[in-house]
Amino acid sequence: MLAGVGSDSCKSDDYNMSGNTLEHVWATNGIRLIGDGVPGGDVNLARVRVKHWEEWFGYWAGRGDYYESLAREALARGRRKSAGELFWKASLSYHYAQFLWFHDPKNRDAGQRRKVDLYREGAPLFDMPAERFDILFESLTIPGYLRLPRTRSGRVPVVMVLGGLESTKEESYLFENRCLARGLATCTFDGPGQGEMYFQSKMRQDFHRFASAVVDWLEKRPEIDIGRVGVLGRSLGGFYAVHCAAHDPRFKACVAWGVLFDLSYYDSMGEPSALGFAYVAGYDDRRLAAPYLKQTLNLAGTAEQVRCPVYALHGALDKLIPATQVDKLRMALADNPDVEFDMPADGDHCCHNLYHVVRPRMADWVAERLGGHV
Amino acid sequence: MLAGVGSDSCKSDDYNMSGNTLEHVWATNGIRLIGDGVPGGDVNLARVRVKHWEEWFGYWAGRGDYYESLAREALARGRRKSAGELFWKASLSYHYAQFLWFHDPKNRDAGQRRKVDLYREGAPLFDMPAERFDILFESLTIPGYLRLPRTRSGRVPVVMVLGGLESTKEESYLFENRCLARGLATCTFDGPGQGEMYFQSKMRQDFHRFASAVVDWLEKRPEIDIGRVGVLGRSLGGFYAVHCAAHDPRFKACVAWGVLFDLSYYDSMGEPSALGFAYVAGYDDRRLAAPYLKQTLNLAGTAEQVRCPVYALHGALDKLIPATQVDKLRMALADNPDVEFDMPADGDHCCHNLYHVVRPRMADWVAERLGGHV
Repeated sequence: MLAGVGSDSCKSDDYNMSGNTLEHVWATNGIRLIGDGVPGGDVNLARVRVKHWEEWFGYWAGRGDYYESLAREALARGRRKSAGELFWKASLSYHYAQFLWFHDPKNRDAGQRRKVDLYREGAPLFDMPAERFDILFESLTIPGYLRLPRTRSGRVPVVMVLGGLESTKEESYLFENRCLARGLATCTFDGPGQGEMYFQSKMRQDFHRFASAVVDWLEKRPEIDIGRVGVLGRSLGGFYAVHCAAHDPRFKACVAWGVLFDLSYYDSMGEPSALGFAYVAGYDDRRLAAPYLKQTLNLAGTAEQVRCPVYALHGALDKLIPATQVDKLRMALADNPDVEFDMPADGDHCCHNLYHVVRPRMADWVAERLGGHV
Repeated sequence: MLAGVGSDSCKSDDYNMSGNTLEHVWATNGIRLIGDGVPGGDVNLARVRVKHWEEWFGYWAGRGDYYESLAREALARGRRKSAGELFWKASLSYHYAQFLWFHDPKNRDAGQRRKVDLYREGAPLFDMPAERFDILFESLTIPGYLRLPRTRSGRVPVVMVLGGLESTKEESYLFENRCLARGLATCTFDGPGQGEMYFQSKMRQDFHRFASAVVDWLEKRPEIDIGRVGVLGRSLGGFYAVHCAAHDPRFKACVAWGVLFDLSYYDSMGEPSALGFAYVAGYDDRRLAAPYLKQTLNLAGTAEQVRCPVYALHGALDKLIPATQVDKLRMALADNPDVEFDMPADGDHCCHNLYHVVRPRMADWVAERLGGHV
């Protein structure tokens, strides 16, 4: 049983178990929030009002509720565009309320579900709407979204955007907009251990089969050119992107938005991340989780199979994933003729602090490889 | 002669003359930067690296140069969208380098010109390009931009977006995008005392004649429905918007993004703003400037003439413009049947801290009045 499940409120022990401190969260994720679309005013206010990590969830949940009320108000006035944007802001607030809240699964799950529901309500209102899909796959259902670029002549390429450890299909809306502006459709889904799917399945060794099931579904869409499918994943999603590209030759371009090659360093990983990995794998003890995680997350022998072009972005100042991981990927891709490593000297984890520079660059690269327009 | 003109470098006296402190700038403008599109990472870094007000200009100019170099790199690779965005980021960096730098006109002017040039280079590359115009008006030239919405069937409405004391035609690119998304064209220009026009003319009492000259020019554009023109101004531009709407009945909707009714409170105004007003009016001494400013900036007897609908946004926590200014406008508009005052209790100057909430709302209101789509 996971820590804290069934308790009515969070005990102080649980907080200690999270391994989180406000200082750590701001240092590793401060700019990420803004890059993903969290309003600067909310971040500023949080820095003043949230004095302890215990207050984090409540503050952001409160912002989410506030944006939801504004969204409904806008909807009542027929202001669909604003309503869509506000539902997205509400969803994003809940996303960041729960994103590192592994120690308190009850609130985390509630926050996760609120995020999902709010995004789902906003999705049809977006300027370029997000169409919800639920794909039956064996005994499970893969939930996701497809968005199409505004102007199309004929079938369009598509880029599959994968989440990571606590990134989900709702998080990269702004990045998707960049891809859409470049003539690419975007497709996101939650795989095992991620977002909505977590309630059905914890992390599995065959993530790629879920991605391929989504490609199968895309093949039937008349808007999509199935000869031009890319895969791009952020943080742990960078691992998944390479993993998927190695297993399915239908992927014609692969982007690791942050490199993760294996979990050989898991034993020395900091608490918050290590507990997060254990959590999504279904363990409440990192020591028990370690063997499964190390076996499941390892690209050795797999990355070598990637035949399509690869772009790997990794911040030289990344404090969560060591640079030795990049060396391993570089070696594994030594025989791949179209590989670009982008390692900004001042970039942090996933270069979130440089979001305005690296995200357009990634979108350009993938659009060039898939025949979009830059 | 203005303070500091002709000096090779800034003397410490000049800094004192600005009346600025970093603390004041962050408190009054911190979130404004992010709302206008300055990257969160740059703001974060500035808070760490810029220790004294003297370092402000250099830091932001450095960011501008950096984005310019990235823009040229993107252009060399044929990445036009990214190049456009990077030129805009470069321009915005220079804008905020110089925006309160009244005490050092040499650098301020150089920064202003860099901002202008960089924006101009990016303008044709924007997703919805900004078309530069230069309108001859008496012995002067009015510089501005026209942007058209992506999809049009027939002539479209247009909203004229006015800058303020140190806001110029380059500053509201993101807000323009919101208007464009709602089917409105956008038109911006620098009037007397603003941006590029400052080098030709300081603040004048007949700002409205410049706006009307731009409307004359818009009348000749086949894309524009001249029966549906709105005017919207931010901060001091809120004064200008009402002033213009009162003088030209072709304006069918008016938005004061921040209310300024008169300068009756000028003598008690804080240094940075007071010196800014004196500067744009062509004075280097606030006491000498006071009579001219009080006479020039006064809506008494004018606001009553506005016949079109008015929307006025003003933050209840605005520390730069007192709430009594709002009362005066409310009284002057008492007989106008379509007036909406939006005064968020937690809004600061122009509600910049709530940019994500109030800016879509303003765009919705003006789109509704001009027959755009929300």
